[in-house]
Amino acid sequence: MFDGIDHVGIAVAEIDSALALYCDTFSMELVHRERVEDHDVEIAMLRAGDGQVELVAPLAAETAVGRFLAARGSGLHHVAYRVSDIDAALDELRTRSVELLDATPRRGARSSRIAFVAPGSAGGVLTELVEPGAPA
Amino acid sequence: MFDGIDHVGIAVAEIDSALALYCDTFSMELVHRERVEDHDVEIAMLRAGDGQVELVAPLAAETAVGRFLAARGSGLHHVAYRVSDIDAALDELRTRSVELLDATPRRGARSSRIAFVAPGSAGGVLTELVEPGAPA
Repeated sequence: MFDGIDHVGIAVAEIDSALALYCDTFSMELVHRERVEDHDVEIAMLRAGDGQVELVAPLAAETAVGRFLAARGSGLHHVAYRVSDIDAALDELRTRSVELLDATPRRGARSSRIAFVAPGSAGGVLTELVEPGAPA
Repeated sequence: MFDGIDHVGIAVAEIDSALALYCDTFSMELVHRERVEDHDVEIAMLRAGDGQVELVAPLAAETAVGRFLAARGSGLHHVAYRVSDIDAALDELRTRSVELLDATPRRGARSSRIAFVAPGSAGGVLTELVEPGAPA
């Protein structure tokens, strides 16, 4: 069902200071940065070798990520699995009684299509599926 | 510094019931299972395409993972980055004032060498380095 781990999502209070840690200390490379107003977050995608780390910062305190940070502090937020056909994957998960936060895929960064699985159906883990967009 | 994401670690109360979710519902494949008495955990490494997920269950309540579960419930626990030379990576991190939980690498599963970085030095994320063992 999953082709691999697309990225690990890490909640941070603010992108710039987090980039200092991840890029300077851990030598990751910033490949993409975007404000996603629809979801009240700013994200930064970093490359760590052939893996990716997504920093997620809230645009306001009273948002899902803002509340996550208030409750737990910065830390691991979600894991995203890469799929080749997100519609088929969501259909398959539905037949397995998995609760989806997104009934249909929505647009993610860089023309990807994404959907989230409810943590309650995924062992307490906020789980994202990513069908990558065509390479630019 | 990092060659990629070796695995994502997920804390679970008990391995068998977690395997039902991860293998049956998410179609991951169990590749390795081990009791690591030194660290009071049982682990199961799962393959998800070309990615890996490590389930970590405590052997007792009064252990690090047991306390994690009591405080937060099951969920994302750590991220592990693959490195080709863990001694060099630890030296480099030390020069960058990163606090290490393991000053020297210790043996991980399947002849790997591993070390943990203190979450306080890694943006709140329990961060592991893995130098994979030679293929069997």
